[in-house]
Amino acid sequence: MERSHKQALMAFLLVFSQGAYASGGHEDQVASMLLGLMILFLGAKLGGLLALTCKQPAVLGELFAGIVLGNLPLVGITGFTELGTGDFFSLLSSIGVVLLLFEVGLESSLSEMLRVGGAAAVVAIIGVVAPFLLGYGVGVWLMPDRSIYVHIFIGAALSATSVGITARVLKDLGKLHLQEAKIILGAAVIDDVLGLIILAVVGGMIGSVGQGGGAFSFADLLLITGKAVGFLVLAVALGSRLSTFLFRNGGKLRQEGMWLSLAISYCFFLSYLAHWFGLAPIVGAFAAGLTVDQAGVAKFFPHEKGDLEDHVVYLARFFVPIFFVHTGMGVDLSVLTDSTVVLFGAVLTVAAVLGKQVCGWGVWGTAAKGIDRTLIGIGMIPRGEVGLIFAMYGAELMLNGEPVVDKALYSAIVIMVMLTTLMTPPGLTWALRRTNR
Amino acid sequence: MERSHKQALMAFLLVFSQGAYASGGHEDQVASMLLGLMILFLGAKLGGLLALTCKQPAVLGELFAGIVLGNLPLVGITGFTELGTGDFFSLLSSIGVVLLLFEVGLESSLSEMLRVGGAAAVVAIIGVVAPFLLGYGVGVWLMPDRSIYVHIFIGAALSATSVGITARVLKDLGKLHLQEAKIILGAAVIDDVLGLIILAVVGGMIGSVGQGGGAFSFADLLLITGKAVGFLVLAVALGSRLSTFLFRNGGKLRQEGMWLSLAISYCFFLSYLAHWFGLAPIVGAFAAGLTVDQAGVAKFFPHEKGDLEDHVVYLARFFVPIFFVHTGMGVDLSVLTDSTVVLFGAVLTVAAVLGKQVCGWGVWGTAAKGIDRTLIGIGMIPRGEVGLIFAMYGAELMLNGEPVVDKALYSAIVIMVMLTTLMTPPGLTWALRRTNR
Repeated sequence: MERSHKQALMAFLLVFSQGAYASGGHEDQVASMLLGLMILFLGAKLGGLLALTCKQPAVLGELFAGIVLGNLPLVGITGFTELGTGDFFSLLSSIGVVLLLFEVGLESSLSEMLRVGGAAAVVAIIGVVAPFLLGYGVGVWLMPDRSIYVHIFIGAALSATSVGITARVLKDLGKLHLQEAKIILGAAVIDDVLGLIILAVVGGMIGSVGQGGGAFSFADLLLITGKAVGFLVLAVALGSRLSTFLFRNGGKLRQEGMWLSLAISYCFFLSYLAHWFGLAPIVGAFAAGLTVDQAGVAKFFPHEKGDLEDHVVYLARFFVPIFFVHTGMGVDLSVLTDSTVVLFGAVLTVAAVLGKQVCGWGVWGTAAKGIDRTLIGIGMIPRGEVGLIFAMYGAELMLNGEPVVDKALYSAIVIMVMLTTLMTPPGLTWALRRTNR
Repeated sequence: MERSHKQALMAFLLVFSQGAYASGGHEDQVASMLLGLMILFLGAKLGGLLALTCKQPAVLGELFAGIVLGNLPLVGITGFTELGTGDFFSLLSSIGVVLLLFEVGLESSLSEMLRVGGAAAVVAIIGVVAPFLLGYGVGVWLMPDRSIYVHIFIGAALSATSVGITARVLKDLGKLHLQEAKIILGAAVIDDVLGLIILAVVGGMIGSVGQGGGAFSFADLLLITGKAVGFLVLAVALGSRLSTFLFRNGGKLRQEGMWLSLAISYCFFLSYLAHWFGLAPIVGAFAAGLTVDQAGVAKFFPHEKGDLEDHVVYLARFFVPIFFVHTGMGVDLSVLTDSTVVLFGAVLTVAAVLGKQVCGWGVWGTAAKGIDRTLIGIGMIPRGEVGLIFAMYGAELMLNGEPVVDKALYSAIVIMVMLTTLMTPPGLTWALRRTNR
């Protein structure tokens, strides 16, 4: 056999030895995706196991597994980077957090959420204002020669709340029924609206003096806020009716799998709508869960076993760990090599934690009876991706030819996000054990 | 407000009005993915409903929904093309068919499959040889002036079986326990090995006289076949022990969701391994299902409800319809505009159907007792993507400066794939009703 023929055959084998069901390239992609998912699942389970052994919530272990997988390049292993940076896994992880908030919404009820609405609003506002002021103060203290806009940006980066971690921990520990849990979840929804306002104001202010941002306009701000609030009002007013209508008519069809398909479609539709109204998709997913009356719709599906949540839970077991391992993979340990940055990050973290601790004191009146203010404060700690968005946005904003958030500040914010995310699961566990709840 | 400021603000709003939880671009992607999935689910359910109303298997309706969605560009609606052509949905659909074959494997047992192994092998071989000869004959008849290699290629394109449709129909109708179902599934696995051999031989033969292919070598052919058979032998010999080992030790950990995670990991691992050994991932997924002893492993998970399949089914309800709608979206109705091509496609379809009808007669001895040969013949009809792979491969092979499969022949093969795929669900329904089974 000639050499050129052999090479041609090898090329042929490379393309076609993958079986007859799809073209080589696609089937290669499928196979590595399956392997990647397997690594994510096993990583999540191993990490979860480790965490449970240490009497910590499984989610901490999933984050830890992600940190290990994501930082393997630091020791020269680059085979897993696609799991952290690839679009496919990133989208799957988004389905994970959407399903998680849908599940959390299913376990809560709209009327209970509305009952704590006032308390949640105050908690949210304090939880935004206090960290903002502290972050601003840290900026003035440690970066006195930088412009006021830089200080404002640090404050903004410290203000938002990322609800995924807290929701997961409270759900895993079976504590979603607690008054504190409802206040935290309600505050997180309101935080999303507040975050929009802050982004618009801060971005507008910087844009009006620098480049790369927009100008500040009260009318536009009103529009943004109005849209976001409009979605919440619409969801509360019409969501329950829409979901009951959907399930009542869907149930009549007696088609296998209709219940789950309708539920997922309703959840994804509200997530999309929330995005369209300017809010995060997970706010829509949570609203979807809240506005499904589980006991009420179950009677439309007498031929299906259990509650809706019993159906969604298996999907969630597939997608949710992907989200947390993926979040862990976003943690870049290489920022920890610069001691100045680490110190700055530690100070920001202290400010971020203290800023949220005053939240709990926002609960007043009858709602405050027997409430654990520390639990609320700890539940509001995680910044997750939200802080990173602010940091990335600031890194792209130019002021007098320099980025508002420079590389050192960006890394310090990353450290703050890492620490607040990682301390929340053990923090919540501690707070719950402390009061035996 | 100045115009330039307004534009800057609009740009800012475009990027940041999507909520605070992720950067604008990514969140946009997430939102349209959620909307896309919703459309796929609702399309699948509506199509399924339509099919059930016409007393047809739901899968026919899902394919139909896909055909409608995929051909909307013909009437000027292009908003849904991403659902059919995007990598993300294509990968999700692959998870769908992998989970389907895993489920089908779970419902079957390895010992039963091995018992029909001999019959399945004869069915598979006849089901490859007969359509090959008929396809070759059609080529000689209708394209007498084309080279023998073109005729061989037509034969090859008619020889493979795509098991997804048949497996789904038999599963939905609760007929996987039938002797015929086991023979069809076994034959499909063996077909995958035969398909590899045909691809190597045909590709090698054409490559040795033309360009763009490889040369034929008996040693390499033996290697390909050996690898594929090696996987099957390994899976049969070690699979059950591996899965029992996994579940026994996993069960001891008492971690929520461990059962499902291990099962999915095992399924994805065998799918990957099958690919690595040269077979299709779905062969690995089927082998994974076969080698899990459901009753046996359930006792390792006394804290979980039901059988393993009860857990996998909810995942399958999410992913499997995506596969069939996606398959339907691949059907390009614009090939139906050329009457010569349609006629040629119709002739190929007749050859494809007749070629598989003789399969059933390959069942002999005790296995033939009470067997419905027509049912087996119909179950082997669908060519699915497999025929398309051959067609695409032939379109890229050049012989005397012309592609072996030219545009007209390619379109005719596409028509054959369309028709064989679409006729299988009603065909199987008819065959089962005819004998009251």
